[in-house]
Amino acid sequence: MALYVQKYGGTSVGTVERIEAVAQKVKSFRDAGHQVVVVVSAMSGETNRLIGLAKSISDSPDPREMDVLVSTGEQVTIALLSMALQKIGVDARSFTGWQAGIHTDNVHMKARIEDINSDGMRAELDQGKVVIVAGFQGIDDDNNITTLGRGGSDTTGVALAAALKADECQIYTDVDGVYTTDPRVVPLARRMEKVTFEEMLEMASLGSKVLQIRSVEFAGKYKVPLRVLSSFQDGPGTLITTEENSSMENPVIAGIAFNRDEAKVTVKGVPDIPGVASRILVPVSDANIEVDMIIQNVSADGTTDFTFTVHRNDYSKALSILQRLASELGAASVSGTDDICKVSMVGVGMRSHAGVASKMFKTLADENINILAITTSEIKISVVIAEKYLELAVRALHKAFELDAEVAEEK
Amino acid sequence: MALYVQKYGGTSVGTVERIEAVAQKVKSFRDAGHQVVVVVSAMSGETNRLIGLAKSISDSPDPREMDVLVSTGEQVTIALLSMALQKIGVDARSFTGWQAGIHTDNVHMKARIEDINSDGMRAELDQGKVVIVAGFQGIDDDNNITTLGRGGSDTTGVALAAALKADECQIYTDVDGVYTTDPRVVPLARRMEKVTFEEMLEMASLGSKVLQIRSVEFAGKYKVPLRVLSSFQDGPGTLITTEENSSMENPVIAGIAFNRDEAKVTVKGVPDIPGVASRILVPVSDANIEVDMIIQNVSADGTTDFTFTVHRNDYSKALSILQRLASELGAASVSGTDDICKVSMVGVGMRSHAGVASKMFKTLADENINILAITTSEIKISVVIAEKYLELAVRALHKAFELDAEVAEEK
Repeated sequence: MALYVQKYGGTSVGTVERIEAVAQKVKSFRDAGHQVVVVVSAMSGETNRLIGLAKSISDSPDPREMDVLVSTGEQVTIALLSMALQKIGVDARSFTGWQAGIHTDNVHMKARIEDINSDGMRAELDQGKVVIVAGFQGIDDDNNITTLGRGGSDTTGVALAAALKADECQIYTDVDGVYTTDPRVVPLARRMEKVTFEEMLEMASLGSKVLQIRSVEFAGKYKVPLRVLSSFQDGPGTLITTEENSSMENPVIAGIAFNRDEAKVTVKGVPDIPGVASRILVPVSDANIEVDMIIQNVSADGTTDFTFTVHRNDYSKALSILQRLASELGAASVSGTDDICKVSMVGVGMRSHAGVASKMFKTLADENINILAITTSEIKISVVIAEKYLELAVRALHKAFELDAEVAEEK
Repeated sequence: MALYVQKYGGTSVGTVERIEAVAQKVKSFRDAGHQVVVVVSAMSGETNRLIGLAKSISDSPDPREMDVLVSTGEQVTIALLSMALQKIGVDARSFTGWQAGIHTDNVHMKARIEDINSDGMRAELDQGKVVIVAGFQGIDDDNNITTLGRGGSDTTGVALAAALKADECQIYTDVDGVYTTDPRVVPLARRMEKVTFEEMLEMASLGSKVLQIRSVEFAGKYKVPLRVLSSFQDGPGTLITTEENSSMENPVIAGIAFNRDEAKVTVKGVPDIPGVASRILVPVSDANIEVDMIIQNVSADGTTDFTFTVHRNDYSKALSILQRLASELGAASVSGTDDICKVSMVGVGMRSHAGVASKMFKTLADENINILAITTSEIKISVVIAEKYLELAVRALHKAFELDAEVAEEK
């Protein structure tokens, strides 16, 4: 007998029929003798409907009241799923965030879980009931309802799994696992059986938005085995774990992530003196523009070139800030482009394998793709290239690093 | 400075615009220096939407989970009203049932309030805030969410007024007060300035459905002055109070209630022996048919005639039950009719004034209206007449008992 925490997102519970399908899936785990705690999101569209109501009253509604409002979305789902389980003969009991003893700090709309008093849930599990918990919500020390921010239901699932010492936290979603890259770009992309938390974090932050980053961090911290599966079809999904793959064929590269909506700004010929980086970046961050990559080349003739990337939506704002600053900075020129993208190779195997970078650059060179900027971390290499080469680059790298699914196996 | 508890029903908060109008009304009381506690229902249509979701899953959803589900309706309204007040500069804080300390028994979907711990609300009032409470809900001793049954928001308002020792509980609705009779039947019907709890109870149970009966009972028990007002227009409404009207022109009759959907069944010539009434009525109530008036005439020749009234929807069922029983009862005949109605005159003044009944009967006789049955209580006389005479009877009685508005005043 195992204890599973299963989380179903908004699409998985988007209609009454889908809620009934989730009930059937939960029943199959109960029938197999397991204990199940289910965490659910609001039915898809419901959170946006509620936010729409608030926005029609105020441009900046009180965060405390926003939490009172939007937390009703998950409360509706827990009641309906509980009814659906009872109807098919599975004893179930719903818990709102406060009923589940989920205590958070008091930062409304992006609260963090501090503690879970799981006694109430444990008592129901011991009585053979399925426990259904509203995701994304809790209470602070003053009994105010809080929410964890959008997508926070994943975090609720992981936190409950940690508190209840569950055998596995299963995140059900509309894809059947984590892929080596986006299958829409590379039809031969392969579902990974396993991936490490570190790799998943790099993949997630780079655009493979299967899981909330925070929930992956949380699962890694508490060593909760996390599995991503499809709500709509059977299969093993992808296990996210602390173990590095121990097989002999340990792949160097886990996957390839990419991000389309990039733009870069380059400041050329600025005097290479201490503080120049902050003089360039502080005005940008003061304008609430998030900077992604930052590259400073080696100095020549006492001046240096400084490049950073931003989201494409912020490009013209960032460019005009730097153009205004140019003379003050003593820069030779400020230029930029917004038709670029970022491609990143991620893999813990990189640590022990030399030559990943050179193989990557050679693969791109063979395709005549020019690299505009490079950054690296211990388990990741990112390059900026012209956006028009994105698909070509990802497919070439996917093949070169032997990530392609073997077509013969598919038959 | 007074403390008002104001309750706004589903129609009064049915749209964002109406919620903003309620906020303005609440603001006017705050601006006048009063403390205000607001109790709100779900936005109109929302409770039915939620019940529809549940019914699409199960014909008999678990009552505990129904309460989890439908209680979200009021939770949405409290958040939105709080936002609307804050937007116009009025400090406000929302309370769900459990946050307001509303403790009930554990009878889901028709719980009764047992106790209110008003400390949290009191603290916010003392800080100058408007307190907004979700109507219709509470928690039981095991922290389960409960609801008071439909329309229970009135009861929440009265209970809060009692707990907080409010100066008045104001029930805002879509009519501007309680009328001497239905203005659709008698255009000269007059809004009452005051009515006693007893009269209101008789009026409410007879079809003047402005207030939930339970909330009127509750207000009477705890001597909470209750006022019915319009959400949509200004005016004093109707005050429901323990004081009987002390003026010299104390009206004998407060108002005239009526009920259209009546039917009657008569069992003639049953042996007048002990137990005959229960032998007639037990099978009827076993069939879940609610019996309203029961009339047994004096006995003649050892037999008696027995008449009772039921809702028109139950007529054919009641009639066929009695027809099956007729021979067993030794009845001469069983007959009935479903084209009747009930007209009732209500007034505490009746207690000290003789002649109300005779004046009523004479008024009806003058209009050639035949009375089919009569029952009386201390403050009420009800007659059953053919339904076709309903409007005629009510108008004639309204005029005869000097309830008509003075047309000259209207100019």
